[in-house]
Amino acid sequence: MAANPWLLDPDRALPAEPTQRAIAREIHDVVADLPIVSMHGHIAVETIRDNESFGDPAELFVIPDHYLVRMLVSQGYRHNQLGVAPVDPRAGEPAEADHRKVWRIFCENWKLYRGTPTRYWLEHELVEIFGITQVPSADTADDIYDELLETLARPEFRIRELFDRFNIEMLSTTDFADSDLSAHAQLAAEGWGERVVPTFRPDALFYPDREQWGRDIRSLSARSGVDVADYSGFLEALRERRFAFAAAGARASDHGHVSADTTPLDRPDAARLFADALNGPLAPAAAAAFAANMLFETARMSLDDGLVMQLHPGVQRNHSEEISRVFGADKGFDIPVPVEFTRSLQPLLQAYGLEPRFRMILFTIDETVYSRELAPMAGVYPSVRLGAPWWFLDSPGGMARFRELVTDTAGFYNTSGFVDDTRAFASIPARHDLSRRMDAGFLAKLVAEHRLDIDEAIETAIDLAYKLPLQAYARLDA
Amino acid sequence: MAANPWLLDPDRALPAEPTQRAIAREIHDVVADLPIVSMHGHIAVETIRDNESFGDPAELFVIPDHYLVRMLVSQGYRHNQLGVAPVDPRAGEPAEADHRKVWRIFCENWKLYRGTPTRYWLEHELVEIFGITQVPSADTADDIYDELLETLARPEFRIRELFDRFNIEMLSTTDFADSDLSAHAQLAAEGWGERVVPTFRPDALFYPDREQWGRDIRSLSARSGVDVADYSGFLEALRERRFAFAAAGARASDHGHVSADTTPLDRPDAARLFADALNGPLAPAAAAAFAANMLFETARMSLDDGLVMQLHPGVQRNHSEEISRVFGADKGFDIPVPVEFTRSLQPLLQAYGLEPRFRMILFTIDETVYSRELAPMAGVYPSVRLGAPWWFLDSPGGMARFRELVTDTAGFYNTSGFVDDTRAFASIPARHDLSRRMDAGFLAKLVAEHRLDIDEAIETAIDLAYKLPLQAYARLDA
Amino acid sequence: MAANPWLLDPDRALPAEPTQRAIAREIHDVVADLPIVSMHGHIAVETIRDNESFGDPAELFVIPDHYLVRMLVSQGYRHNQLGVAPVDPRAGEPAEADHRKVWRIFCENWKLYRGTPTRYWLEHELVEIFGITQVPSADTADDIYDELLETLARPEFRIRELFDRFNIEMLSTTDFADSDLSAHAQLAAEGWGERVVPTFRPDALFYPDREQWGRDIRSLSARSGVDVADYSGFLEALRERRFAFAAAGARASDHGHVSADTTPLDRPDAARLFADALNGPLAPAAAAAFAANMLFETARMSLDDGLVMQLHPGVQRNHSEEISRVFGADKGFDIPVPVEFTRSLQPLLQAYGLEPRFRMILFTIDETVYSRELAPMAGVYPSVRLGAPWWFLDSPGGMARFRELVTDTAGFYNTSGFVDDTRAFASIPARHDLSRRMDAGFLAKLVAEHRLDIDEAIETAIDLAYKLPLQAYARLDA
Repeated sequence: MAANPWLLDPDRALPAEPTQRAIAREIHDVVADLPIVSMHGHIAVETIRDNESFGDPAELFVIPDHYLVRMLVSQGYRHNQLGVAPVDPRAGEPAEADHRKVWRIFCENWKLYRGTPTRYWLEHELVEIFGITQVPSADTADDIYDELLETLARPEFRIRELFDRFNIEMLSTTDFADSDLSAHAQLAAEGWGERVVPTFRPDALFYPDREQWGRDIRSLSARSGVDVADYSGFLEALRERRFAFAAAGARASDHGHVSADTTPLDRPDAARLFADALNGPLAPAAAAAFAANMLFETARMSLDDGLVMQLHPGVQRNHSEEISRVFGADKGFDIPVPVEFTRSLQPLLQAYGLEPRFRMILFTIDETVYSRELAPMAGVYPSVRLGAPWWFLDSPGGMARFRELVTDTAGFYNTSGFVDDTRAFASIPARHDLSRRMDAGFLAKLVAEHRLDIDEAIETAIDLAYKLPLQAYARLDA
Repeated sequence: MAANPWLLDPDRALPAEPTQRAIAREIHDVVADLPIVSMHGHIAVETIRDNESFGDPAELFVIPDHYLVRMLVSQGYRHNQLGVAPVDPRAGEPAEADHRKVWRIFCENWKLYRGTPTRYWLEHELVEIFGITQVPSADTADDIYDELLETLARPEFRIRELFDRFNIEMLSTTDFADSDLSAHAQLAAEGWGERVVPTFRPDALFYPDREQWGRDIRSLSARSGVDVADYSGFLEALRERRFAFAAAGARASDHGHVSADTTPLDRPDAARLFADALNGPLAPAAAAAFAANMLFETARMSLDDGLVMQLHPGVQRNHSEEISRVFGADKGFDIPVPVEFTRSLQPLLQAYGLEPRFRMILFTIDETVYSRELAPMAGVYPSVRLGAPWWFLDSPGGMARFRELVTDTAGFYNTSGFVDDTRAFASIPARHDLSRRMDAGFLAKLVAEHRLDIDEAIETAIDLAYKLPLQAYARLDA
Repeated sequence: MAANPWLLDPDRALPAEPTQRAIAREIHDVVADLPIVSMHGHIAVETIRDNESFGDPAELFVIPDHYLVRMLVSQGYRHNQLGVAPVDPRAGEPAEADHRKVWRIFCENWKLYRGTPTRYWLEHELVEIFGITQVPSADTADDIYDELLETLARPEFRIRELFDRFNIEMLSTTDFADSDLSAHAQLAAEGWGERVVPTFRPDALFYPDREQWGRDIRSLSARSGVDVADYSGFLEALRERRFAFAAAGARASDHGHVSADTTPLDRPDAARLFADALNGPLAPAAAAAFAANMLFETARMSLDDGLVMQLHPGVQRNHSEEISRVFGADKGFDIPVPVEFTRSLQPLLQAYGLEPRFRMILFTIDETVYSRELAPMAGVYPSVRLGAPWWFLDSPGGMARFRELVTDTAGFYNTSGFVDDTRAFASIPARHDLSRRMDAGFLAKLVAEHRLDIDEAIETAIDLAYKLPLQAYARLDA
């Protein structure tokens, strides 16, 4: 072990300027230990139900983390070298089986993460959660691997035990529309029903240009008990599933469309497109029109079941067809595209935007819409809330720019508070803590510039960290 | 009254960092008391002519302020609860008649404005202008209401008396093309002709897709004394009105188009569209082409009468048709859209951009064009000046980003200095003071980084606060 | 001479806040004297070969510098007043022959440059390189002119002597595809072959809508020795020239396209467009399709010769046809337009993006793509590096925003390090020094916020200033 153990500064990510740092520290002290409300994420519910060990260090930190993997790929490593298996063993070289080697690649390349949120999250995880005392490097890789291996095998490092240690009050998973929700039911039977809830994600059903769409429709049919022979049956089956999710505790639906278009189709047109799709994949333009129509229909349905509607548009998935074919989805090759909200959301907001029983939470990776479109809409439509900085923007700079660009027009109280959107369970406390630090820094600047009183800043920080996420994701059928 | 009276810090909105704050304070001290030049705003000229009282607190602060109203609407209040009357009594519930109740809603929701410019402006108005000593809240609402009611009734709080107190040297109203300018004439007769001037706003006539267009053309015909039977008559009538405005002291025309397109039409095409429009509303695309053509014609006309041309593009008006139908225009539901200047302005700038007797001031709510399009154009075309951050961007952050994004390429001397663009007379000193503070902060950073000397910074601050607005809006026919 | 000589603060452009400044100074001290690697610029190779004097002050500082000239034009000066000659003596008024008058205009307008990078560069040049001790003004213009005239005549102020004084290790010129490379050959014969290298710039050949395209094709034919009678001959001639450039030491090709489109054409379609173009200029859309195809072909060719591919898209050249007709290209009237990378580069990256022997360096003047498109692509494709802030963004603010917006997702090691892209030889040290200061400031903020250790920051600063440019522009056929 090194002479100087690895320590994290208690003031990390707070403003460097001393006046603002002192104020930010005062604010952060109040919110640091508030419970975590994690209303949108991608932890598989089965891992919570089964409460298994996280495996070895490569399995926990490297292989499933697309932020971390993509940075190594950008410097010439191949996915399989990093332990990522090809989807079909014939499609590519096999994954590196020696996970110690995978871990070494990561440690040797620690410097690539300088200045990135991955660096920040991993420091927090390794030091604060797993007690590592050496900085990753070629020299320390093996020591750290051994130490982590031992730690991860201990029962207090299983996921449910960490729920308590992390002070997670509520966590939402993301579940396909045809999910049987059995894992959620089992958790509910064990008293975890309020703590782990599902989210309804029907994207696969809304894009009928996908090869697997017909299969997914049959699965929906089977799960819902509704014969999905036409568009009416489709809407009925969706309604059934939404109520099933709501009954299982769901607070929200989630929609990862390419564009934010919400133009409804006339009923006969929608029915015709649906009928066509049953005969084979639609052309992309027709599929996009159908998807836009389904966002409109989703808003309408939410008036009945109270699910909050989340929209995550603007990503071109699988930018490299080769990576997609060999290694599958979510491997770091999703690239943002420009997105437009003002005109795209108008049909939906004309119909439901003033409706007290409708709520929509908007996310973006295109920062140009913050001050131009999102803040002006959230600052007037009672149904609209702005989600937290998403994906590539879930970073110190991304968070600072979000508050800077939306607060003037939308204030704090039309935002959702922090949403972590992570696949990496162990990173949840780091992500929430970083958000609390960045908001403390933003509020501290307002206080230091005499634009806000310290007691107002503290109340606002508590709201952003804890109360607003609960309010934003509260079902509206109550 | 509270034990601790509400006081505003003299250093508010200056940089938090002590070195920069000290420099900024030194700069601000020099510009704080310079006269106000308010060259683009929306105060009704009749209110100045009649010099009536501002009414009660809700009538002054809440009901007419779309910034303030929209924030309350975003949290679920309805316009009529806030005292906003439906345009047609049959169209919606009547406005709350008890303005004390309206005022209470505002005070109870004071926290919504945290971090917004509305908060900053209202603090300045309530404390500095009206002597309020309690922070708005449910508890203080009635006290403040009573105190304001009494204050607003005093003769020294009428608009013309406040002109002197606010040190307003010149203020421009915005007037429809068919305005008779009689209120301006009366003010001139009372010696206020140099102090209050009109601005020529012909938008209504340039968009022949509007139902009321034919009526507006007849009104133009009547007012100008030119028979507007065809496109030639239309141009002649516009010319007449522009000269009438110029004779009444106008410095500028103003154009609130959806896009910045300035493509001219061939004369026969323009004439044909105009003839079609006389028979009924044009299709949107044809109307847009006509509007673009009229921007080009406006530049041509300005060579004769010297009016400076202001362009405010990029807003989708009346995003909610329901709000528009029930409560009318300017109720907070105008939402920005992306805007493009480089290609859109090329036809106009090809023709007149190098003309010494032409000047155009460009505004935007889409910040993406600052460094990409506006600064590069203003930094080379002698006719182009950049207006101040507009509407949702008229905020501490918006002002900071404006200077940050345009100064590299356009410098300070291709910008117009501050333009308040407000409907709220009592907010004018607050808005100008905030601008002077933010520019002082920006200049202080340059000084602290040894990129500018303090005497240069002070001279620049004086230019931005006072001299540049006068220069930018000086008529070019002199 | 003034009582107080003009001195530049050693801490200029470092952060104002004392904690960060101290750290930034520590970092900057380490990188300040590293050799300069200038891998993309527009110094004419003949001026290096001939090692002539720079002429008079107007010839060195004013006339050829489009940054400087455009600012004076924006305030009403005409190009010819500034010593810029019309391309055809009949096309416009002659250039001012008295260069002392030109110099006076510049000095009298020194204040226009406040807050701009031109001010920063010129201060550095005048004070640090040429020993000027008076600030430019109407009063000092003649003194400074005389002093500079004398200095510039001294042998140690010729370009090759300044190479040593500036510590330039390697400099790349930009050369037309049909260049005979003889000046480079002469420099090589004198032992300067490693120090001055060419860059292959074929834009003129890729846009067959240009009047001169046929002439350029004939010139290519003559220079390459390949009969360019059809598309196959065209590709063969390009290949020949690329190898000739590579043999002359070239590291890269450079492409200044309007858009970033890389869609390949089917071979017969490309051949047909080429044949059409031989008969006369193509329509703009066809020319754009051909240009996109040629970017794709360029990537393919680079696998054979190892030249790194630079892309500089998104500028509308010659926005004012009048200026272009009278004074020619590069006179300050090039204006950026919005640019899109994600979809535009997909065809090329699908084909070659994972190829270890391909490298592409991306530049932009549209800052909206930094966090949305460029950082996500550079952060995963091993072939992609992000170039330094370009043109209007080569400024303190532009550099700060670049690091702020790309580091989260791309880190430091997917960027190219500094690229100066200048026509002004004497500004090279100023530009590199400014970049080193700004990066030191950015790294210092990370250190002060406890997000990076000081030793990591210093190593990163050395990489950004020196090692990464060498790596990014290393040929890949080695």
